[in-house]
Amino acid sequence: MSQPQGRLLGLGVGPGDPELITVKALRLLQQAPVVAYFAGRGRKGHAYASIESHLQPQQIQLRLEYPLTTETVSGPLSYDQIIAAFYDRSALSVAAHLHEGRDVAVICEGDPMLYGSYMYLHDRLAADHPHQVVPGVCAMLGGAAMLGTPLVYRDQSLSVLAGTLPAGELHRRIALADAVVIMKLGRQLAKVREVLQELGLEQRALYIERATMETQRMLPLADVDPASSPYFSMILVPGTRWQA
Amino acid sequence: MSQPQGRLLGLGVGPGDPELITVKALRLLQQAPVVAYFAGRGRKGHAYASIESHLQPQQIQLRLEYPLTTETVSGPLSYDQIIAAFYDRSALSVAAHLHEGRDVAVICEGDPMLYGSYMYLHDRLAADHPHQVVPGVCAMLGGAAMLGTPLVYRDQSLSVLAGTLPAGELHRRIALADAVVIMKLGRQLAKVREVLQELGLEQRALYIERATMETQRMLPLADVDPASSPYFSMILVPGTRWQA
Ligand SMILES: C[S@@+](CC[C@H](N)C(=O)[O-])C[C@H]1O[C@@H](n2cnc3c(N)ncnc32)[C@H](O)[C@@H]1O
Ligand SMILES: C[S@@+](CC[C@H](N)C(=O)[O-])C[C@H]1O[C@@H](n2cnc3c(N)ncnc32)[C@H](O)[C@@H]1O
Repeated sequence: MSQPQGRLLGLGVGPGDPELITVKALRLLQQAPVVAYFAGRGRKGHAYASIESHLQPQQIQLRLEYPLTTETVSGPLSYDQIIAAFYDRSALSVAAHLHEGRDVAVICEGDPMLYGSYMYLHDRLAADHPHQVVPGVCAMLGGAAMLGTPLVYRDQSLSVLAGTLPAGELHRRIALADAVVIMKLGRQLAKVREVLQELGLEQRALYIERATMETQRMLPLADVDPASSPYFSMILVPGTRWQA
Repeated sequence: MSQPQGRLLGLGVGPGDPELITVKALRLLQQAPVVAYFAGRGRKGHAYASIESHLQPQQIQLRLEYPLTTETVSGPLSYDQIIAAFYDRSALSVAAHLHEGRDVAVICEGDPMLYGSYMYLHDRLAADHPHQVVPGVCAMLGGAAMLGTPLVYRDQSLSVLAGTLPAGELHRRIALADAVVIMKLGRQLAKVREVLQELGLEQRALYIERATMETQRMLPLADVDPASSPYFSMILVPGTRWQA
């Protein structure tokens, strides 16, 4: 006998502060029989940490643990192959619950569709399963709020970039934008800072770590020690203030 | 006798669906003795419409009504001058409450710091008054969720552009991005669509009006009638799917 399929729910939980989840995501999270989340090896997972206090004891937790901690791998398989196989397996674990008729809430830090890990499950499952995506407050806007800085005025453009891009690419793209956000910093920090220096933007650049979390830290970009900049950090170059 | 100043609160209320406000913004909104909002002449105001159901009868409402409905003006003053004077007056009305010790919650559609009207009050008041900004779900992420499309993968870059830019500027900036969001469409639609055609991107472009609102509409970009495209519309060109 076939029973109704469960729904795949992609829930943005916001940048870290547990109160920055939306009313909608919180409602769907608390109603879901299964809560799935990605986490690094031996880590709690940032999305999980920010919603842990909202969970109910009877909910099934499905932990999806990344097989790698860095993009450097040795052996016959490439990083991409290992990660793709991991997402395939993760999609199967989620689908098993969906087939049993259980909704699965996949929680995602920030917004699910902006560099979110949920996207890799969505791409594998959304075509065949009922699904719903609930947008979330993304990290860069959490950062702008904490830094107290307007990000873009009027017809200014904003470029959102990954610090993992080569220096030349970063340079070209930053040069053409009125405001910039650089994510995925961590070990990229020294390179990114150099590009900003070349463009004369270092003074306008604002740096923030773990925005909206209890461990949040803001400091001048010049003072950041590249060796200790965490992955959960960002640089914002706000657009110049519109002098109305 | 001097009493403690009220706090200026910039609250993102999300893209339209009343449930897409964060738990934090909702709490601060309901605790605030004064709720301020911008609205067009004779209009309810989009931010107001999405939080109206959350308001309490004893809250003071401060409506800040735009003096103009279009950017075309005639007379001795420019659009910029008229708008700047309006924001000056608005800041004074808000400050009057702050001086009386009342917190003022300024509600803002989407996020307050991303092209938000709150920014103009922030720039005028934040230096002299205690303040707090609560980030919100921005329109483009509400749009991506409703369209069910991942927006950017891995090290792809995202450019957020205003449709009010000249065609040449739009062309240059879109050409260099992996994913694009174009806001402030409305009367700019025909121009923007032409640029996307020139770049061969029309097939990849997704169009949405009033995302997450009850009146939401999604249709192929080719089918949009430029004469009827509302200001609350967007085009998303998602990054190409990462085939992991
Ligand atoms: C895989 S992306 C996830 C982005 C997320 N889906 C969003 O909507 O913002 C991870 C990157 O987001 C940024 N990030 C996420 N949360 C952050 C926070 N609370 N503070 C600073 N950066 C954060 C960091 O740059 C990090 O490298
Ligand atoms: C002044 S900007 C405000 C942006 C807002 N602060 C945010 O965070 O998204 C107004 C533009 O946002 C876009 N917009 C805002 N809400 C929208 C919605 N619900 N659906 C589609 N577009 C929307 C439209 O492109 C509109 O022209």
